[in-house]
Amino acid sequence: MNSFGRLLRISLFGESHGPFVGIILDGCPAGIALEESDFLADLDRRKAGATGTTPRREDDRPELISGWFNGNTTGAPLTIVFRNGNTKSGDYDRIRDIPRPGHADFVLHEKYRGFNDYRGGGHSSGRLTVALVAAGVVAKKMLGSSEVHATLTEAGGMEDVEAAVAKAVAEQDSIGGIVTCRVSNLPIGLGEPFFHSLESLISQAVFSIPAVKGIEFGSGFAAAAMTGSAHNDMLKDGSGKTATNHAGGINGGISNGNELCFRVAVKPTSSTPRPQQSWSRATGKVESFEVKGRHDLCIALRVPVVVEAVTAIVLADLMLIARSYS
Amino acid sequence: MNSFGRLLRISLFGESHGPFVGIILDGCPAGIALEESDFLADLDRRKAGATGTTPRREDDRPELISGWFNGNTTGAPLTIVFRNGNTKSGDYDRIRDIPRPGHADFVLHEKYRGFNDYRGGGHSSGRLTVALVAAGVVAKKMLGSSEVHATLTEAGGMEDVEAAVAKAVAEQDSIGGIVTCRVSNLPIGLGEPFFHSLESLISQAVFSIPAVKGIEFGSGFAAAAMTGSAHNDMLKDGSGKTATNHAGGINGGISNGNELCFRVAVKPTSSTPRPQQSWSRATGKVESFEVKGRHDLCIALRVPVVVEAVTAIVLADLMLIARSYS
Amino acid sequence: MNSFGRLLRISLFGESHGPFVGIILDGCPAGIALEESDFLADLDRRKAGATGTTPRREDDRPELISGWFNGNTTGAPLTIVFRNGNTKSGDYDRIRDIPRPGHADFVLHEKYRGFNDYRGGGHSSGRLTVALVAAGVVAKKMLGSSEVHATLTEAGGMEDVEAAVAKAVAEQDSIGGIVTCRVSNLPIGLGEPFFHSLESLISQAVFSIPAVKGIEFGSGFAAAAMTGSAHNDMLKDGSGKTATNHAGGINGGISNGNELCFRVAVKPTSSTPRPQQSWSRATGKVESFEVKGRHDLCIALRVPVVVEAVTAIVLADLMLIARSYS
Amino acid sequence: MNSFGRLLRISLFGESHGPFVGIILDGCPAGIALEESDFLADLDRRKAGATGTTPRREDDRPELISGWFNGNTTGAPLTIVFRNGNTKSGDYDRIRDIPRPGHADFVLHEKYRGFNDYRGGGHSSGRLTVALVAAGVVAKKMLGSSEVHATLTEAGGMEDVEAAVAKAVAEQDSIGGIVTCRVSNLPIGLGEPFFHSLESLISQAVFSIPAVKGIEFGSGFAAAAMTGSAHNDMLKDGSGKTATNHAGGINGGISNGNELCFRVAVKPTSSTPRPQQSWSRATGKVESFEVKGRHDLCIALRVPVVVEAVTAIVLADLMLIARSYS
Repeated sequence: MNSFGRLLRISLFGESHGPFVGIILDGCPAGIALEESDFLADLDRRKAGATGTTPRREDDRPELISGWFNGNTTGAPLTIVFRNGNTKSGDYDRIRDIPRPGHADFVLHEKYRGFNDYRGGGHSSGRLTVALVAAGVVAKKMLGSSEVHATLTEAGGMEDVEAAVAKAVAEQDSIGGIVTCRVSNLPIGLGEPFFHSLESLISQAVFSIPAVKGIEFGSGFAAAAMTGSAHNDMLKDGSGKTATNHAGGINGGISNGNELCFRVAVKPTSSTPRPQQSWSRATGKVESFEVKGRHDLCIALRVPVVVEAVTAIVLADLMLIARSYS
Repeated sequence: MNSFGRLLRISLFGESHGPFVGIILDGCPAGIALEESDFLADLDRRKAGATGTTPRREDDRPELISGWFNGNTTGAPLTIVFRNGNTKSGDYDRIRDIPRPGHADFVLHEKYRGFNDYRGGGHSSGRLTVALVAAGVVAKKMLGSSEVHATLTEAGGMEDVEAAVAKAVAEQDSIGGIVTCRVSNLPIGLGEPFFHSLESLISQAVFSIPAVKGIEFGSGFAAAAMTGSAHNDMLKDGSGKTATNHAGGINGGISNGNELCFRVAVKPTSSTPRPQQSWSRATGKVESFEVKGRHDLCIALRVPVVVEAVTAIVLADLMLIARSYS
Repeated sequence: MNSFGRLLRISLFGESHGPFVGIILDGCPAGIALEESDFLADLDRRKAGATGTTPRREDDRPELISGWFNGNTTGAPLTIVFRNGNTKSGDYDRIRDIPRPGHADFVLHEKYRGFNDYRGGGHSSGRLTVALVAAGVVAKKMLGSSEVHATLTEAGGMEDVEAAVAKAVAEQDSIGGIVTCRVSNLPIGLGEPFFHSLESLISQAVFSIPAVKGIEFGSGFAAAAMTGSAHNDMLKDGSGKTATNHAGGINGGISNGNELCFRVAVKPTSSTPRPQQSWSRATGKVESFEVKGRHDLCIALRVPVVVEAVTAIVLADLMLIARSYS
Repeated sequence: MNSFGRLLRISLFGESHGPFVGIILDGCPAGIALEESDFLADLDRRKAGATGTTPRREDDRPELISGWFNGNTTGAPLTIVFRNGNTKSGDYDRIRDIPRPGHADFVLHEKYRGFNDYRGGGHSSGRLTVALVAAGVVAKKMLGSSEVHATLTEAGGMEDVEAAVAKAVAEQDSIGGIVTCRVSNLPIGLGEPFFHSLESLISQAVFSIPAVKGIEFGSGFAAAAMTGSAHNDMLKDGSGKTATNHAGGINGGISNGNELCFRVAVKPTSSTPRPQQSWSRATGKVESFEVKGRHDLCIALRVPVVVEAVTAIVLADLMLIARSYS
């Protein structure tokens, strides 16, 4: 099931080394003005090239192949595709033989009985986040005055992210990081009790981003060591504003009118340049090997814009739903 | 949307102070042997009465009112209800006037324009987790040799949970905790890339439990400070077993044959006995007040069995799906 | 999967001879005034007792066990249950041995490997339509000025329905009929291209009613023999009104502002009093038998109010969705 | 919502005059052998060119742009696209001004507030059925020994379809027809009580085909005039085979092991060559006009292969689900 959402429903497709990756936004309202240039800023934020990211450079030009007419969305399914270029399949032939540690190579082979496109991770590649980012651009246009903003606030255990990346480059070992996401001007009432709580939906979406291994809202794990009297946020007035925001803007799974705030843990890039060992399907033994190909030392650098995108998608869907009940 | 799951689909209903709370399990296979006694152990684990939990004692007797015949599930929707007793609505009349900090009182009133059943949190009450636990009992029967086991591994910042609760009682302030959940003997291949990754589905389910504010899989947030060479788990052989388990049993969103492991942050009980302040809808001012009623000082004590339940529900659904493709 | 709908989502449960049948309406807006008396008229229309219907008389008293507070819906899942009384299980013991022709006895036994509750058809019984009718009462309150009206326009091949029933009683053989449903004042724009066309959703809902075997919209099957110039409805003005209504109020799967009109074919009651033959699981041979128990000679008499109910449920859901995009 | 299905889920996108039309099959098992040549026979059956069909000739070459590797499905979303060629947008400019009778021009304009791609019907065009047919080819490969076979059994009210088309050509007026679909070797047990009955799902799918206005299973509308003793199908033995098949292979919404049989009513092509009248948005008056462009006189000629396709998609999904419970 590669789709997500209720009224705004996205469906993701494509592989790292196939001809296209793309996404359908079904349920997107008619009349949203969209031009190719609207996508550039967010696609640039995701794009390779910065220190610590892979030298693979995609053109990353979004093509709106359905649901778009005369510069606007039409109300029909909006399909955005990106052509893949610069793919050297040969680099990845060894993946069949030696599953890369930290990657999904082994489980994909087992799950799909060897039929999966193993090149560059196939459908499970981080390459597909380019389509998520594009969908996020559209979703952000549906958020009215609400603004989603995510940044990398830690890398390799350090708050000085640039220093952390420099260290990773020097040591030639990959690192992870922490992404902090904040949403301002969110209306009260998004999310529902239980399975469609705001935390439930955001976490479902955020854990679809490769390399994410944790999420916490507001005080999160720190709250587990606090007392109720310290943690509770005092309601100041009828607008819902509270004196503190340990809840991260959510009570009972529902947005409470304060800033939505959550943090996301990104593991270190699995494709470290360091020599590694893994079991070889070819020989039946554990063997030493090195990961070849173009890889990020700190994939976390690219994650904030993807977190923004999936968060915007969740919120746009919830805002559509909220309109039904207003 | 109070339902969850694809082939095994649960739907939750009821209120803290209504006549019933209950759950439907739709898509439950026919022929699962079920007796009332099967539910007792898990319901007891959730039940009130231990130090640090509320003195409210429900009978918590599950009634199987549909989908059950001659001691077995029938394949039709299985409905389990619990009658609510011992509810004193009068205790909660003030909630309308002074929304309790940390609770959903304020947002529920706004979202449902004052029509929500505000007594004891209404539909958003932790009371409904009794139905989740019952559904979990059924789901566990669908897991074959896989076993889900969750425990409270920290409370109030201490690993000695009993000491933490004693301290909370002495100080008359509520505390939170950390639940650790492990699943053994899980088959390879559960979960899918992106929106139905194992982390996505488990987190969606776990965040439906009231008071949960964080989740991390494997090394989780600690992974963000590790290097790739330290974090990667070396594949030892063709069974999928790895030398370490920093991934928590999941690669690329798919179970990898190792122990599934995740940790859940539970905030301190919002209903602390300490005096608090909140804005009053009646007077339009911030006022001091004390939460009356029967409340847990450490709601986290009751959470492990609920985490087990929702995890079992997710896994049972994924195992059904896996059978389709085997 | 016993649920249906997107924003307004119904889930049906219960068995003919279990303690309850019921339905959840999830996504029902808060603030709909509801009293038990609101249900009586439609429940009476469905109820047994008229000539040609079974003498089984249920109290059919709806109990609102969740999602209802102080006379209004709360926005939480609304659960309505009916207690079953007057059930004589003994009547049905033979069903296990001799599957009744026309009924689902044989396929249910095969599908659920003998675990199904076979008494009175179990979960597949027409008894469950009492819960659909109750849900329809709530849905009708969500339709604004749109009115759904279904009647039995043919029975046993005759337009004089009373005469047809009298003939069936005289001949002691069951009969079927045609239900015609019309919806006035429907707004333009409900339904979507392809899988959620208005015809798709209404037909999905209508075929969930036991004994329905056909549906046609507007001219329906007659249209297949018409020419385009005769069938096309001329648009008269900008309100969408057309000179004729061969389309039944739907173009391209979307309501066009004219009266919605469709016809439903109901087969004769399977439980005819006539002696029949069927294969016996007990003896392995075809044997003669008679259906015992309380049965309608013309189940079609009870169907119009159920058609109204499921139609109203579909339309209420689509109106909620339409509000999101208005 | 342009998607359909539970485990095998299809999502349709594209417009008549956009660059592509396409479909995603999500949940398609890995390891289904697929070549372009597999699609040709069914695409030819749908293709234009026969007497009574439009002279528009598309290449209709399916491109498998995701989920396909080394000649097999991979288990990832399978995306099939068709490039549109030979589109003359200029032909359709008048649609904005004069909504064509029988078409969705008027309702699409209203529903999408004028933002819809009006060229050739846009997303609502019959052009998109090329993608449904392609998905049907894949679905048919999942059906094992079950075979779906649909033919046009009536046109313009005549059983001699060729004569009917010749008459339509002579009279220069469009005609409709009846498609009969039969499925042999269907296993017992597909479909579920109520909303996912086999009739519910097939009808939902079939009504997504443009121009379909009616469906009946087995005896269908004729059953409404039969008696129970005449209509009931006698069970002959433990294999489920019955002496007659008035039920069309379905009891209680579940396949019963006999031939599945249903009939579909297709209205006459809305774009008749005859002069017509319609309200003009430009002038505000009813005006005479003629539909220009390339159109089928008997669109029903192309429908059988589309009925086969959507039926195969429904059945493939149900067979996947059935495997979960076997």
